[in-house]
Amino acid sequence: MRTNRLEAFSDGVLAIIITIMVLELKVPTGHDLTDLVHTTGVGLLTYLLTFVYVGIYWNNHHHMFHLVRQVSGGVLWANLGLLFCLSLFPLTTAWVDDSRFRPTPVVIYGLNLLSAAIAYFVLQATIIRQQGPASPLRQAIGADIKGKVSPVLYVAGILSALLIDRSGRIGVGLALACFVAVAIMWVVPDRRIDRVVQQHEAPD
Amino acid sequence: MRTNRLEAFSDGVLAIIITIMVLELKVPTGHDLTDLVHTTGVGLLTYLLTFVYVGIYWNNHHHMFHLVRQVSGGVLWANLGLLFCLSLFPLTTAWVDDSRFRPTPVVIYGLNLLSAAIAYFVLQATIIRQQGPASPLRQAIGADIKGKVSPVLYVAGILSALLIDRSGRIGVGLALACFVAVAIMWVVPDRRIDRVVQQHEAPD
Amino acid sequence: MRTNRLEAFSDGVLAIIITIMVLELKVPTGHDLTDLVHTTGVGLLTYLLTFVYVGIYWNNHHHMFHLVRQVSGGVLWANLGLLFCLSLFPLTTAWVDDSRFRPTPVVIYGLNLLSAAIAYFVLQATIIRQQGPASPLRQAIGADIKGKVSPVLYVAGILSALLIDRSGRIGVGLALACFVAVAIMWVVPDRRIDRVVQQHEAPD
Amino acid sequence: MRTNRLEAFSDGVLAIIITIMVLELKVPTGHDLTDLVHTTGVGLLTYLLTFVYVGIYWNNHHHMFHLVRQVSGGVLWANLGLLFCLSLFPLTTAWVDDSRFRPTPVVIYGLNLLSAAIAYFVLQATIIRQQGPASPLRQAIGADIKGKVSPVLYVAGILSALLIDRSGRIGVGLALACFVAVAIMWVVPDRRIDRVVQQHEAPD
Repeated sequence: MRTNRLEAFSDGVLAIIITIMVLELKVPTGHDLTDLVHTTGVGLLTYLLTFVYVGIYWNNHHHMFHLVRQVSGGVLWANLGLLFCLSLFPLTTAWVDDSRFRPTPVVIYGLNLLSAAIAYFVLQATIIRQQGPASPLRQAIGADIKGKVSPVLYVAGILSALLIDRSGRIGVGLALACFVAVAIMWVVPDRRIDRVVQQHEAPD
Repeated sequence: MRTNRLEAFSDGVLAIIITIMVLELKVPTGHDLTDLVHTTGVGLLTYLLTFVYVGIYWNNHHHMFHLVRQVSGGVLWANLGLLFCLSLFPLTTAWVDDSRFRPTPVVIYGLNLLSAAIAYFVLQATIIRQQGPASPLRQAIGADIKGKVSPVLYVAGILSALLIDRSGRIGVGLALACFVAVAIMWVVPDRRIDRVVQQHEAPD
Repeated sequence: MRTNRLEAFSDGVLAIIITIMVLELKVPTGHDLTDLVHTTGVGLLTYLLTFVYVGIYWNNHHHMFHLVRQVSGGVLWANLGLLFCLSLFPLTTAWVDDSRFRPTPVVIYGLNLLSAAIAYFVLQATIIRQQGPASPLRQAIGADIKGKVSPVLYVAGILSALLIDRSGRIGVGLALACFVAVAIMWVVPDRRIDRVVQQHEAPD
Repeated sequence: MRTNRLEAFSDGVLAIIITIMVLELKVPTGHDLTDLVHTTGVGLLTYLLTFVYVGIYWNNHHHMFHLVRQVSGGVLWANLGLLFCLSLFPLTTAWVDDSRFRPTPVVIYGLNLLSAAIAYFVLQATIIRQQGPASPLRQAIGADIKGKVSPVLYVAGILSALLIDRSGRIGVGLALACFVAVAIMWVVPDRRIDRVVQQHEAPD
């Protein structure tokens, strides 16, 4: 099994996830700037954050599959697992937005981010196991420091929102700071994979 | 006619079906975990089941078209027939969810699953007839035991929901058990096709 | 400019049009079969008709672009014109459905079908003009009898719904019979194009 | 990194943006032509304008990437920035429509158009910088007169809606005239790029 249809299908699902979120943004009922800010403003920020996250997953997925030539049934299902976790982003983002950053929705959003990170890790591990000892993907990710720091930050964010100052804003603010920090960390593309891709890439 | 556009179009439709279902999941109106469980909880389970089903159809479609080089008009329409049946999944899933597993919606969901299985069988038979006596697809599916067991289980599930304990939960529970059993049976990918694909696959 | 991105983009738009219509189908509020028939039944039939129409346009588009190697800016815009007309199908289908086949919505649905047929004709003519005197597409469509009969039937349907028995069902029934007749006429794939494709198709 | 997945993903997002806007068009509640005109008429015009804009961006994106062979991480993110701006079109279009062309929504629509133009410019500049001094894209765009006139017209339109006759129709009319003028200017495809593409295009 080659990877082209898996990539095309994943691109389709990610393109839809990243775009349908805009359907959750409410059109202001009034006609003034204050209506826009009050009705859509908060939603726009969470939309932007989730857009960046889906963009990161698309970029990383794109990089990763440059090092994959063959896919097994296990990889197909690990990939669907990742898509399932990502497909819940519009729902959890809309809940955070509707609740105006109440602790529980922020915790659930963090758990959604964490589940996607775990699903990505499972996909990566499935590919590496399939590729065997000379796996170019294993070589490319190296120590995978970002991949290890991200879940720690997600858990820190979730615990902040759960435990610190539940009736106030501090815990939620710390949680969002953690989630934004992970996004910023990943926006910088992974140069190691770029390097290994240049060495390993087979001509089409 | 080559298969690449048929595959791309089918991938697009399946990607949309699998993703728009999340638009049917209701965002909780309250801000607590109990709101999430009450509003979205049941929907999440049926979403997961239908997601797995669409994933199975995508996987099988993907495997099947590895053995197809040319498509006739008949195959195009048999494929559209399958996509039509699958496109009703979001509707029937939402009804099961809204009704909290009442017998009639569960029966209709089962009939939808059955119609998709029949449409897939028709597509498979159309391809085999077009490929002629040396059909690699016929060779690959062999006795097609899973393909024969699935409709039997669907019918068993439909009859359970129709006939057993309509005011209680037993019939519906049996029906759902049948539908989950078919999904589990198919999640394991079909090794026979993998084997024939390796033998027959033409270089691109 | 090669055709692959134009085809991919058109496939994407057609896949979305054919799939989002299901979002317009209402989930029954009750839990019985009569609720399904009353709430969703009519919509299901018009959904099926429009699904078949979009399927026909996809098939014909697919066949047509097998004979096209290069696209100019004019072809890109003629193609977008066709996609625009097709993108209104979910709206006009939903209106016919909501109004339970009242004459005006049926007329507007017929005008939508007619506009798509004209846009398809314009796209075809733009390609033929670009290909010059030895155009394989011109050769393939020949006398284009189906292409000439379809708009006549659409106009006949529109006039029936407009003029005959506006308070009753006869005019609308005739109109729908015309629209269904066009669909049936096109579901049979165009063997002439298949033949010319086999002669002209350049190896990729 | 080759460009094929970036193109496929962008095509997917643009196909969804251009198509989901039709979901924002309201189905008339009555069954007469006046209901259609009142409920959907204005929306149809703004839908058409935005459809043309998305079509222009797709065409230009398509042309531009004919001159790109390799994409860096910076190009991926510049491209996602453009897609983000374009993904807000359904929202701002719906607001203009709901408000029946009140000044503030028209200004926001203009800012959305301007932001997309800036994002496109950033993407173009990122590619040119990556391609180095012999950049075929720089050569193709030349003086980029259209690219420089467009933001001027957007700003003129925004200022008209902001400053002129806020309680009447003149300022908004001038703004819409500016936005329509930019669209007309771009619908004519860019012959210079066509010419350079023919010279530079690498065989696949």
